[in-house]
Amino acid sequence: MGQYIPPLRDIQFVMHELLGVEQELKQLPRHADVDADIINQVLEEGGKFTSQVLYPLNLSGDREGCTLDRETHEVRTPKGFKEAYQQYVEAGWPSLSCDPQYGGQGLPLVLNNTLYEMMNAANQAWTMYPGLSHGAYGCLHAHGTPEQQALYLPKLVSGEWTGTMCLTEPHCGTDLGLLRSRAEPQPDGSYRITGNKIFISAGEHDMAANIVHLVLARLPDAPVGTRGISLFLVPKFLPDAGGAPGARNAVQCGAIEEKMGIHGNATCQINLDGATGWLIGEPNKGLNAMFVMMNAARLGVGMQSLGLTEVAYQNALVYAKDRLQMRSLSGVKAPDKPADPIIVHPDVRRMLLTARAYAEGGRAFTTHLALLLDKELHHPDEAVRKEAEDEVTLLTPIAKAFLTDNGWIATSEAMQVFGGHGYIVESGMEQYVRDSRINMIYEGTNTVQSLDLLGRKVLMDNGVKLRKFGEKVKAFVEENGTDEAMSEFITPLADLGEKVSKLTMEIGMKAFQNQDEVGAAAVPYLRVLGHLMFSYFFARMAKIALEKQDSGDDFYKAKLGTARFYFSRLLPETAMLIRQARAGSAALMALDADLL
Amino acid sequence: MGQYIPPLRDIQFVMHELLGVEQELKQLPRHADVDADIINQVLEEGGKFTSQVLYPLNLSGDREGCTLDRETHEVRTPKGFKEAYQQYVEAGWPSLSCDPQYGGQGLPLVLNNTLYEMMNAANQAWTMYPGLSHGAYGCLHAHGTPEQQALYLPKLVSGEWTGTMCLTEPHCGTDLGLLRSRAEPQPDGSYRITGNKIFISAGEHDMAANIVHLVLARLPDAPVGTRGISLFLVPKFLPDAGGAPGARNAVQCGAIEEKMGIHGNATCQINLDGATGWLIGEPNKGLNAMFVMMNAARLGVGMQSLGLTEVAYQNALVYAKDRLQMRSLSGVKAPDKPADPIIVHPDVRRMLLTARAYAEGGRAFTTHLALLLDKELHHPDEAVRKEAEDEVTLLTPIAKAFLTDNGWIATSEAMQVFGGHGYIVESGMEQYVRDSRINMIYEGTNTVQSLDLLGRKVLMDNGVKLRKFGEKVKAFVEENGTDEAMSEFITPLADLGEKVSKLTMEIGMKAFQNQDEVGAAAVPYLRVLGHLMFSYFFARMAKIALEKQDSGDDFYKAKLGTARFYFSRLLPETAMLIRQARAGSAALMALDADLL
Repeated sequence: MGQYIPPLRDIQFVMHELLGVEQELKQLPRHADVDADIINQVLEEGGKFTSQVLYPLNLSGDREGCTLDRETHEVRTPKGFKEAYQQYVEAGWPSLSCDPQYGGQGLPLVLNNTLYEMMNAANQAWTMYPGLSHGAYGCLHAHGTPEQQALYLPKLVSGEWTGTMCLTEPHCGTDLGLLRSRAEPQPDGSYRITGNKIFISAGEHDMAANIVHLVLARLPDAPVGTRGISLFLVPKFLPDAGGAPGARNAVQCGAIEEKMGIHGNATCQINLDGATGWLIGEPNKGLNAMFVMMNAARLGVGMQSLGLTEVAYQNALVYAKDRLQMRSLSGVKAPDKPADPIIVHPDVRRMLLTARAYAEGGRAFTTHLALLLDKELHHPDEAVRKEAEDEVTLLTPIAKAFLTDNGWIATSEAMQVFGGHGYIVESGMEQYVRDSRINMIYEGTNTVQSLDLLGRKVLMDNGVKLRKFGEKVKAFVEENGTDEAMSEFITPLADLGEKVSKLTMEIGMKAFQNQDEVGAAAVPYLRVLGHLMFSYFFARMAKIALEKQDSGDDFYKAKLGTARFYFSRLLPETAMLIRQARAGSAALMALDADLL
Repeated sequence: MGQYIPPLRDIQFVMHELLGVEQELKQLPRHADVDADIINQVLEEGGKFTSQVLYPLNLSGDREGCTLDRETHEVRTPKGFKEAYQQYVEAGWPSLSCDPQYGGQGLPLVLNNTLYEMMNAANQAWTMYPGLSHGAYGCLHAHGTPEQQALYLPKLVSGEWTGTMCLTEPHCGTDLGLLRSRAEPQPDGSYRITGNKIFISAGEHDMAANIVHLVLARLPDAPVGTRGISLFLVPKFLPDAGGAPGARNAVQCGAIEEKMGIHGNATCQINLDGATGWLIGEPNKGLNAMFVMMNAARLGVGMQSLGLTEVAYQNALVYAKDRLQMRSLSGVKAPDKPADPIIVHPDVRRMLLTARAYAEGGRAFTTHLALLLDKELHHPDEAVRKEAEDEVTLLTPIAKAFLTDNGWIATSEAMQVFGGHGYIVESGMEQYVRDSRINMIYEGTNTVQSLDLLGRKVLMDNGVKLRKFGEKVKAFVEENGTDEAMSEFITPLADLGEKVSKLTMEIGMKAFQNQDEVGAAAVPYLRVLGHLMFSYFFARMAKIALEKQDSGDDFYKAKLGTARFYFSRLLPETAMLIRQARAGSAALMALDADLL
């Protein structure tokens, strides 16, 4: 039936031993009183909720899926989803990192982010309901009028209502400039909104009393393209003056999509038929308003795949220790049994360690990134805030694309450990693969992330942000360059750092001549930077583990083992990636489309 | 609704221009009269059947799946499957490459193999019914008694009856030595067979009048392990003297598995409860009898993924030319449209060309391999037969594992071209990904293939077979080494050839000390050899294309473009793989299982 044990020990290692989160938060007045005890307590409680309430609904939610009543246009979520959400709300989880002004607990994002790792590991499809809601909260918090905020934010913070983000239309996903939904201004200051949205996650459901849709649409006089898009607040039920859900608005679910995975989440076609809405932020600045939330949302998708990577690893590990099949090539290991457990086989370990290393590297990297988000918001020194913002800007597309690609690889390897049994739904393993697949697509495809990273984040600012990160790497390399025990980690890290500099310059030169060179190099380039991040964090983790390996706590031995595996078997991917990134656009663009 | 256009032009290029199949077959007395016209005619007819009859049932078959009647233990296949099978039988397709002595048409395997590429592209789940049947035919043809052959082979050849292979039990898949099913000899020379089999593809269905199960089981006095396994023929209905299906045998489908993909194929739990069966071949030599068919079966799995790679590519290509989204980075390409078709984006082309190159490389490689199977069977010169057999032995695990890994990559890239639409069932794209996933698992997992290749096929014969293949590569390199136009292909091919030699020697030395070094290196090693094969065949294809590129037929320009893409963007994987294969077992085996 599977298992999910929240990886609290590793989370705490990353938070306290690797990143010194408590000390970092002390620099932020808002979070200065958040100590390790509070962090650990929240994580423990969160761990219980996710493993005991959400995880048992994961497989059943996938099998049952969501159903639309075509008469009422209401959606029924899988058995238990509604009750789990009720528990989630009652325990106050939606408000964890929200603004105390609206009833939030005001805890740091770094904590909320880790809660989401656990929630996604336990049940990605379920987690998308509160996840989207949190995105809508953030958008309204940043751009709503005081009246909108007073009316809607407390409901979103408490979880009483949920929210959605309505961007995509049938003919436009990546290219929102093409969108057609229209908003007609009304004498009372509201708008009548008409259009068809698709792929709206958590777009309709039975878990909350109201749903607050944030909808992109065009005003009558709007310029064409992305500069003519405005953002509107369109509640399912129009709240009355007291904030209670009132009349049904003309926004309906027309259909729910049949998908490869995340069956427990209702992916809706949302039809707006003169629905009443209100402008959020300035006219024609809708994309800016929504893109403020983009960094958090992209990191959120990375956390989905991190969660799946962890849970898939855990289950494959249990199976590998239990399943007896063949004897070890280097001699019988379990003479009292009819065969050895398959964990004796080197390639089974390769598959397991691939998932494990991607989980541990991803956890260190994204916790660092989430902490930067707290700094960006709350550090008293503007220069530090700016620096944090720059680094967030650089790292976010990597967190989204690298972690979701890794999640696809890791869940597939974990499934492979099960042999034929992994292909059977009952094992739960193939669901992790199917669920993880969407993460490479939504919230900007991984190609879009790569273009954003290489084009906008690296080349357009002449590599300034990347060099800043490179200086951290260099400082660490210099600091540990003479430590012989660290050389197995420092040497490849330093080497990769240099290669990244050269590669970046080379692509920059070529892009100067031909912008298609950016498109040709972007995807492997992003993965190279992902490995730079992972090798940096694994080297830092290895340093701590080396210091404590004789402490009697086996955790450090295991950490060292995972780091060594990473450098030995995963980092070599960069040898391929750099060649691919350097290969140029000619072989891609040579043929006319008709010849393909 | 998707499309499948049989790639006849490329198939004919491979058959006639690359491999000279007609000339090769002239050396085999049995096939000396099979000329290009016959080949092309069969392929055209096969193409029509697969695209017009099988392909339209693919998506609907996936959605409907198979259903078991728990009262009668009969299985209903998806709507249209039965009728399509009837057409298949009436057109004589089951008998294409079968022995004329039993009603077969006696055409070469290389032709049948390509038919299977098209059948799998159109509908893998459906194709598994005749596919398994053909395997049972082959086994019985090689090992059955004359009476068994006279009774069963004509029915299998005509397709009136189908067959299965019943190997796996719940506790043993890879490790058949553990199997428990028992066979009790009866006074009349038959056996009563009892046991539980799982994962039996096409194990029960409504498409044929009888099902002939080939079942592995143990005799009462059998030695433990793999040397105590015998093979039995267990028909669903016991044939009467005239060969008509008679009494129902005690072999039943207990359940059908709910799987990630291939929903249209019934994956059955088969319960034998004192079922009547007859020994095939010698007692305790059941694995040998079954493994005779293993090479063909493994190639067959490779063909499944080759088919999926091709059809996924075709559909992604149509979408990429049609879908308008964003503008080309190097300037507007379709000024009359609201956006450019996404095929202008270099990374979309990378995804498309990845699938295309894996399809074309796989087609060349497997057609060569299938032709070797014909030579192995029918060449008049024993030395040539032996040489062909040796090469088949070497290439088969590569065809299975490399092509199925590639199919997983290619179908996923093709799906990614569709963005969010690819995740929706209706697009058909996610089905290709799900269907392709099983191919990496069954008929020996890809890890097992890799161990077989490196351990048994390469190291155990001191690299003799590999060197033989290497000589072909060397000869081609020398022959074309001075041709400047070929240097872009010859240089990397020669380089890889040398690296393979060194790598093989290095692993061999290490394995001498520690057999776990084989397990640690096997998976990346197999992919390195896969790339050696592909780069050899792409270089050969490029040579022809260079010669004919000015012929006015754009096919050759396209071929050259795909070859260049392969060398530029896919072959660089070897830089990673060689590092991984050389990394050794230490990082994998260092940690105790308890520390994972």
